[in-house]
Amino acid sequence: MDEAAAEVQERVRASFERQGLMEHLGARISHIGPGRVHIVLPSRPEVTQQHGHFHAGATSAIADSAGGYAAFTLFREDSSVLTVEYKINLLAPAEGDHLEAVGTVLKSGRTLTVCRLEVFALQGATRTLVAAGQQTLIQIEARPERRA
Amino acid sequence: MDEAAAEVQERVRASFERQGLMEHLGARISHIGPGRVHIVLPSRPEVTQQHGHFHAGATSAIADSAGGYAAFTLFREDSSVLTVEYKINLLAPAEGDHLEAVGTVLKSGRTLTVCRLEVFALQGATRTLVAAGQQTLIQIEARPERRA
Amino acid sequence: MDEAAAEVQERVRASFERQGLMEHLGARISHIGPGRVHIVLPSRPEVTQQHGHFHAGATSAIADSAGGYAAFTLFREDSSVLTVEYKINLLAPAEGDHLEAVGTVLKSGRTLTVCRLEVFALQGATRTLVAAGQQTLIQIEARPERRA
Amino acid sequence: MDEAAAEVQERVRASFERQGLMEHLGARISHIGPGRVHIVLPSRPEVTQQHGHFHAGATSAIADSAGGYAAFTLFREDSSVLTVEYKINLLAPAEGDHLEAVGTVLKSGRTLTVCRLEVFALQGATRTLVAAGQQTLIQIEARPERRA
Repeated sequence: MDEAAAEVQERVRASFERQGLMEHLGARISHIGPGRVHIVLPSRPEVTQQHGHFHAGATSAIADSAGGYAAFTLFREDSSVLTVEYKINLLAPAEGDHLEAVGTVLKSGRTLTVCRLEVFALQGATRTLVAAGQQTLIQIEARPERRA
Repeated sequence: MDEAAAEVQERVRASFERQGLMEHLGARISHIGPGRVHIVLPSRPEVTQQHGHFHAGATSAIADSAGGYAAFTLFREDSSVLTVEYKINLLAPAEGDHLEAVGTVLKSGRTLTVCRLEVFALQGATRTLVAAGQQTLIQIEARPERRA
Repeated sequence: MDEAAAEVQERVRASFERQGLMEHLGARISHIGPGRVHIVLPSRPEVTQQHGHFHAGATSAIADSAGGYAAFTLFREDSSVLTVEYKINLLAPAEGDHLEAVGTVLKSGRTLTVCRLEVFALQGATRTLVAAGQQTLIQIEARPERRA
Repeated sequence: MDEAAAEVQERVRASFERQGLMEHLGARISHIGPGRVHIVLPSRPEVTQQHGHFHAGATSAIADSAGGYAAFTLFREDSSVLTVEYKINLLAPAEGDHLEAVGTVLKSGRTLTVCRLEVFALQGATRTLVAAGQQTLIQIEARPERRA
């Protein structure tokens, strides 16, 4: 898979590190390509629901962030990204060693960008699609990000 | 607002306590009515995005849980609830002392239930609608929940 | 229910009449309020699916238009409205004398507007909620509309 | 592309012909594969919105039907399909000679099926993605379909 330009990767990683929630969940970025970002979330009790699987909220949180940063890789340097809305289907119980969320830009516009969201559960060599969604994002003028 | 029957409240609270993610985020249930559940999430750095506001993932996680338990209050005693899908619009920056997610059953069917999702940001006396969504849930035979 | 200003009503009706699809389906506007529009669709074989009920496509088409014009009532005079996306749940079989779609603005922003969509089936004195949804719209500079 | 079994194709076409709306719009099925159905809609004034493009309601109607029949190709012979909900993004103005809606099964379950929806506008040799969505369907016991 293609890697995004170094400057873009740096911008994405710097922003990701300012997201308290991602660190709190234990999520990390595993790939930054042009219009495509992967985020990985290891399994642990802090991200589960009542049956011991990954909570839909955790699954959605990394899907939303993956899509947001996928859009961000194609934005102007002096811009910020906000999620307008997203829709997600939980297709199968999210169980495994870790989740991998993949955000992919479907359509990049001047104001709005639309991403496809996919989340896979990985258990050993098995990779199962556990969630699929679609997201709308808006490009706005950069606003100061909080200090990490 | 009406309170749900004591037995139903107990069932909801017991299940909620088994959700590692809700405890990890610091969320708690503030109201359990028939077909309506409120969940509160106090502000703290662990639930933020890069601008210091509540992360859309945290906002969505409590909205999803509020809708799920709202549906659950109307289910048979020996059943479980799973989120099929949801859609959420982030309407305004989610900033304030805490968030309040409100899940309300719109239509309760034998197999599927549809909920309206709303999330408000509370700052002193101000209550702002920051997210609105809609969710589909399925009633399934009870599956053992993990020990808390 | 409040009526929108005469100038706004005229602008909405003029645009509606240029929608070939609405006329082809037999739909008409029954209410134009500030941030709220109703569209009525009488039952006839041309708008059915395979079981003889209203087709989800017809139900959605009037819901989408009701939301679009609800947003439009709050827009600048020299602007146009485009649907960015919508999500709709089909809650019950859509059968009856006619459908009534209600679009209501939830949040009106400078660029984006979010509407709640509801569709009711009316049979004599009975009014049943058969579809519920949520829609995102964008305000753009006016573009010439086709001649009716 | 794979074709579905003759018996399945026949079942899909028979059901499609009972949809008054599809005939009224002028839509026809152009491909029936296992878990994948294409529907084509030629341009004409009866399916337009106020700017003369295809109306989002027409775009959505064929997308919804394409997904519904894609799911149906994988169902038991004695079953019916109902749309639970769908979400669709309108990505670009839908203009051209005709539209092609493609419904593809993402996940086929015992009760619920999830489809990806895509709509392309075709103008000469150009094929543009104008809408993308996701849909949830339910398999129910066959109910009698109306006579064509």
